[in-house]
Amino acid sequence: MHLIGVIGSQKASQKAKDLAYETGKLIALNNFVLICGGLEGVMEAASKGAFDQGGLTVGILPDKDKRSANPYIKIPIASGMGYARNFCIVQSADCLIAIEGSYGTLNEISAALNLQKVVIGLECTWNIDGLRHAKTPQEAIEMVKDILS
Amino acid sequence: MHLIGVIGSQKASQKAKDLAYETGKLIALNNFVLICGGLEGVMEAASKGAFDQGGLTVGILPDKDKRSANPYIKIPIASGMGYARNFCIVQSADCLIAIEGSYGTLNEISAALNLQKVVIGLECTWNIDGLRHAKTPQEAIEMVKDILS
Amino acid sequence: MHLIGVIGSQKASQKAKDLAYETGKLIALNNFVLICGGLEGVMEAASKGAFDQGGLTVGILPDKDKRSANPYIKIPIASGMGYARNFCIVQSADCLIAIEGSYGTLNEISAALNLQKVVIGLECTWNIDGLRHAKTPQEAIEMVKDILS
Amino acid sequence: MHLIGVIGSQKASQKAKDLAYETGKLIALNNFVLICGGLEGVMEAASKGAFDQGGLTVGILPDKDKRSANPYIKIPIASGMGYARNFCIVQSADCLIAIEGSYGTLNEISAALNLQKVVIGLECTWNIDGLRHAKTPQEAIEMVKDILS
Repeated sequence: MHLIGVIGSQKASQKAKDLAYETGKLIALNNFVLICGGLEGVMEAASKGAFDQGGLTVGILPDKDKRSANPYIKIPIASGMGYARNFCIVQSADCLIAIEGSYGTLNEISAALNLQKVVIGLECTWNIDGLRHAKTPQEAIEMVKDILS
Repeated sequence: MHLIGVIGSQKASQKAKDLAYETGKLIALNNFVLICGGLEGVMEAASKGAFDQGGLTVGILPDKDKRSANPYIKIPIASGMGYARNFCIVQSADCLIAIEGSYGTLNEISAALNLQKVVIGLECTWNIDGLRHAKTPQEAIEMVKDILS
Repeated sequence: MHLIGVIGSQKASQKAKDLAYETGKLIALNNFVLICGGLEGVMEAASKGAFDQGGLTVGILPDKDKRSANPYIKIPIASGMGYARNFCIVQSADCLIAIEGSYGTLNEISAALNLQKVVIGLECTWNIDGLRHAKTPQEAIEMVKDILS
Repeated sequence: MHLIGVIGSQKASQKAKDLAYETGKLIALNNFVLICGGLEGVMEAASKGAFDQGGLTVGILPDKDKRSANPYIKIPIASGMGYARNFCIVQSADCLIAIEGSYGTLNEISAALNLQKVVIGLECTWNIDGLRHAKTPQEAIEMVKDILS
């Protein structure tokens, strides 16, 4: 099973949430597992996209109580380690897709690039050396499939 | 989805591994998800038991590299937080089954009891106030089903 | 600098707090650094004991906000990792003194023994194989000095 | 006691190490405590700068063995949580000075800005919205003193 990380803010624009939903959907349709931070915004939209296709969704939560997961997370992992859980997501994902995002997303992008993981930005706020870019969820998933093949 | 934790040593007796295999098998047959530390010994035997029945297995690894998981882990979570990952397992599990075990297992049992989670001991080395006991994997799973119903 | 860990409950008896105060005092008088969980109960009493002698006190806090430390902590470390911070205390201490204590203290004792650290119990609730025992703070500190010399 | 974080790479240029040494020195001369990642490069140079003035130095180590600290760390905290320890540094520091730095430093900068902590860049590789800049260690310390007064 390949785990694809989707990272982005809790407080996301409608456009970002739409992209996240479509990305989650494509992750599930390609039989990948979605891994994310398990909360709202980009995370919830991506989870719903995968969930609606019957896909498997893993949420690595900051909290120690797994009821803090959004309703589309099938496997909630209650890390209890706060935002340090970003490292769990990044280390567990085979590659990552970053959608929009603020400092928290930049934190995950930098952790992933530090580990030489591929990160693909979609409408990504940050323009960091090493980050790849895609114009659509379809293009992002094609890049993921190329990397994992 | 209910997550059932199986905890126990990397260096386990054959008897403990046989009990762990049977426990993992029953977890899968009851459509529960197995969550464990993802390494060898009791963890690997339980993972194989669930895997052989087509069950879902989650391993919360101490290492930051998910290739450290045993081969029966379908969803490896590379926590990178060392044995502090015990807390992730305990917080994410709906209830736990402890098989044999040394200080590491005692660490998980105490973390779980501190969170008022149910822990069922099977041939468990430790006799801690609050720990329940079962004589067979079948009895342990019946207790789990009662608790979660 | 040697770091001596003092572990015990937030909700401690007066007797335990008196022992913790005396233990913290002796830690400072012997030019050791006190390391603890930084919260109330045994932790606060031990911190005050060391603080009142001008000793250095380090508190490894579960919270991400260092203002959660008790007022006698000079170096608050805001781990943000919840009770998984127990591992930070145990790994950083040269040896540990456990006073009274519930499941949380058992969690720290088991983590320490797993790392082959010396743990000395004072009125300790738990009777775990490998745990040493002292009758008074003075005796505990003499044991610490022997170990570190 | 105020804790000033110094962040930067293990593999640093001589210029960065010189700036780090001077920064550490000024931290100690102003009676601040230095907190850093406890390893080599910028971290070691800053630690030595503070140490040479008799200052207090705290190193939050990725490893679980505190012997991994550089020789100028007086209080080694063996987090055992890998690079997730970046969060411990950032959460514990009153403000931070970033010197040069690669993805790991960006990870700490983003974590700090996410918590609305002040981060001052010195020859900093990254130009992130919210990061302040200083031309010399003296200027950086003056900014720190202004912020903490």
